Amino acid sequence: MTPAAGGATSPYVAVVGAGGVDVAPEVLAVAEAVGAELGRRGAVVVTGGLGGVMEAACRGAWSAGATTLGILPGGDRGAANPFVSVAVATGLGELRNGLVVRSADAVVAIAGGAGTLSEIAFALKAGKPVAGIGTWRIDGVTDAADAATAVALVFGD
Amino acid sequence: MTPAAGGATSPYVAVVGAGGVDVAPEVLAVAEAVGAELGRRGAVVVTGGLGGVMEAACRGAWSAGATTLGILPGGDRGAANPFVSVAVATGLGELRNGLVVRSADAVVAIAGGAGTLSEIAFALKAGKPVAGIGTWRIDGVTDAADAATAVALVFGD
Amino acid sequence: MTPAAGGATSPYVAVVGAGGVDVAPEVLAVAEAVGAELGRRGAVVVTGGLGGVMEAACRGAWSAGATTLGILPGGDRGAANPFVSVAVATGLGELRNGLVVRSADAVVAIAGGAGTLSEIAFALKAGKPVAGIGTWRIDGVTDAADAATAVALVFGD
Amino acid sequence: MTPAAGGATSPYVAVVGAGGVDVAPEVLAVAEAVGAELGRRGAVVVTGGLGGVMEAACRGAWSAGATTLGILPGGDRGAANPFVSVAVATGLGELRNGLVVRSADAVVAIAGGAGTLSEIAFALKAGKPVAGIGTWRIDGVTDAADAATAVALVFGD
Repeated sequence: MTPAAGGATSPYVAVVGAGGVDVAPEVLAVAEAVGAELGRRGAVVVTGGLGGVMEAACRGAWSAGATTLGILPGGDRGAANPFVSVAVATGLGELRNGLVVRSADAVVAIAGGAGTLSEIAFALKAGKPVAGIGTWRIDGVTDAADAATAVALVFGD
Repeated sequence: MTPAAGGATSPYVAVVGAGGVDVAPEVLAVAEAVGAELGRRGAVVVTGGLGGVMEAACRGAWSAGATTLGILPGGDRGAANPFVSVAVATGLGELRNGLVVRSADAVVAIAGGAGTLSEIAFALKAGKPVAGIGTWRIDGVTDAADAATAVALVFGD
Repeated sequence: MTPAAGGATSPYVAVVGAGGVDVAPEVLAVAEAVGAELGRRGAVVVTGGLGGVMEAACRGAWSAGATTLGILPGGDRGAANPFVSVAVATGLGELRNGLVVRSADAVVAIAGGAGTLSEIAFALKAGKPVAGIGTWRIDGVTDAADAATAVALVFGD
Repeated sequence: MTPAAGGATSPYVAVVGAGGVDVAPEVLAVAEAVGAELGRRGAVVVTGGLGGVMEAACRGAWSAGATTLGILPGGDRGAANPFVSVAVATGLGELRNGLVVRSADAVVAIAGGAGTLSEIAFALKAGKPVAGIGTWRIDGVTDAADAATAVALVFGD
């Protein structure tokens, strides 16, 4: 017997980055490619559940038939992007960033601002691998040139 | 396009109750029946992700092909029961009870102790429907004689 | 050397109850008496930081020269009642109820609704003593006729 | 009437930095000076409640007769350093970093690792001023050469 979706024993990888409507198209394209590659590898893709990089990563995962977990800042599931398979409406505001990281085994950070930085920091504090594409240059974040490289890094290929 | 699992727009119903290894078989049977009925109706079944009533409800939902969301108290996804489709390892301890309720539109409470009581209380505070089977007698909890009745109650049939 | 206020090693006792503007005057009087008696015994009085029973308990503690800790649901310290010595603006909503209980060694519950019930439940789950005055009748809550009795109960006199 | 300790309307300033036993003496001296200067200005000093920079900042504030709020990661108040006036035992682990920042109007960051980085990030996300002494070089953090300068910065002098 196996569960209906990813199950708790699949790899869970968070994809973090900016959520605004003004994220550059090339950043969204990278996020979608990361989500798709993670999905092909059988990962559950964890995001903050909103738009921008989060939605693009979910769309990519969805296109690969993968499960996406959206951990929302507000108390309303309706804020989730349409490619979220399972939503958690936390009502915790930005503190939910910590839950995104706790829920994942590794993190791919794509561009992003201060919220993304908090997720990188939580991951480093917890000793989880972080691959970065065009994001904060922080000791401990491994730079990746593209989606395939980032995913390979977090899978320890 | 629809997401791979329940999606954020499905109904989400929490099933809460005792998690210990000594839960009575008839309580587990009710929990499994509740999970199965919720699954047949297309609900995502939300639990605290551990054993006892939580596992039985997940098993029931799984048997109906439904998605289950397990919101765990600890930081290790490995603690999830095998019928959890998607696990959130919160590291929040009992405070995760509040997230179980926030993630759901309605609650079915089955037997249970003080942890279950906290979930009932959060649901009442938030104005969410609570159906109870052999659980705390609290104003605002609607008693149900069996699984089908409880599920009908939270769906507002 | 001793710290400027209660210090972490003082007893911490939560006083929980309704926060609305329509709490009965006799309930507020009891809450104030509980706060005063706790203050006289050197306890730090922990509340949810808002009005009603929370404010009355803080006023009582303040009149006894004691320290009060207000753990607020919102993100704005300005919502604290004027008798809060130290405020924590959590932004967690009702989940802050769990932090009120975690911060305390024991709980005095006075009247109250579903929010108060969640605090009673968390305390029972954590094995902390709960004295109740005109509040929910729950196994594990020790009924007290008045403020002095409730405080004696939580101090284990 | 004014409350027994800092009150909710005082300025609250978080001092964040490494908590280990191996923090350099000169870093601790700066943290103590920051705490003292904040105390002299009437601020409530908010920290994560443990050792290292947190304890040094509390010691400084205590020497100035100020109130210190320690927001602990664990569930045991006994982990607080002896200069914590009021302790909150959150049981949230590193997520309590977010509450340290939410509780404060501004942040002074002194040296520090990934945990400190998470606090800087949360503060920037929330639009709160951050002064840094020998800490992460992040856009939005204003470098300060010494304690007096850092405190002047967060007070907007």
